[in-house]
Amino acid sequence: MTDDERAIRELVDTWLSVSRRADLPTVLSLMTDDVVFMAPGREPFGREEFAAAFAGLKSLRIDVRSDIRELQVLDDWAWLRNHLEVSITPPGADAPMRRSGYTLTILRKTNGRWRIARDANLLTTETAPVPP
Amino acid sequence: MTDDERAIRELVDTWLSVSRRADLPTVLSLMTDDVVFMAPGREPFGREEFAAAFAGLKSLRIDVRSDIRELQVLDDWAWLRNHLEVSITPPGADAPMRRSGYTLTILRKTNGRWRIARDANLLTTETAPVPP
Repeated sequence: MTDDERAIRELVDTWLSVSRRADLPTVLSLMTDDVVFMAPGREPFGREEFAAAFAGLKSLRIDVRSDIRELQVLDDWAWLRNHLEVSITPPGADAPMRRSGYTLTILRKTNGRWRIARDANLLTTETAPVPP
Repeated sequence: MTDDERAIRELVDTWLSVSRRADLPTVLSLMTDDVVFMAPGREPFGREEFAAAFAGLKSLRIDVRSDIRELQVLDDWAWLRNHLEVSITPPGADAPMRRSGYTLTILRKTNGRWRIARDANLLTTETAPVPP
């Protein structure tokens, strides 16, 4: 494994860990200024909209399992294809909501640091939340 | 516009035009041998599954409008972010089914030719088909 591959895998691990902790300053440091997130059925969004949505995650318990299927480094750019299993438990809920699926992510290295530049999130809901 | 950018835009135009005509040999020539297509709610698939699904399109009238939002060439790789509006009319249908949304595509240049290597398709259905 090259240093770049290792750094990108660490970035993914950090991303998952800060999602669990809803640590906004750290998660924002992992994306480029011009980052674009894409998901089905909505317009693409950037840092500010990400930050607003991220603040709403604080009360949830979130667990993410990541399985990087492909990682290709191209000098100062890279792309990776990941499979994620996300479990989200709202406060007081009996059972978590589960989402799973693939992501296709483009990363960029600037000033020696890798960051997420574009992300296509194809996750879908597996199980509806159990009503109270 | 560089020659590479022009070639990639021509590839997208050719892709849309062969989709309309259901021209399988040409569409297969536009993708790498190891191509991976991704869409929400299903496992990723490659050339063979693409070809099987593509054969089923022959009886449909398909119109696609493409609006490339970003295109970045990285030596022998490139990525592009596209917005597509697809209208699909089955035989005898009064109204088309409409799908729209974004794609994130990774392309590769081999032997001087650009081909699609990875594709994340985030399109969703706008309107259910009108029942007969």
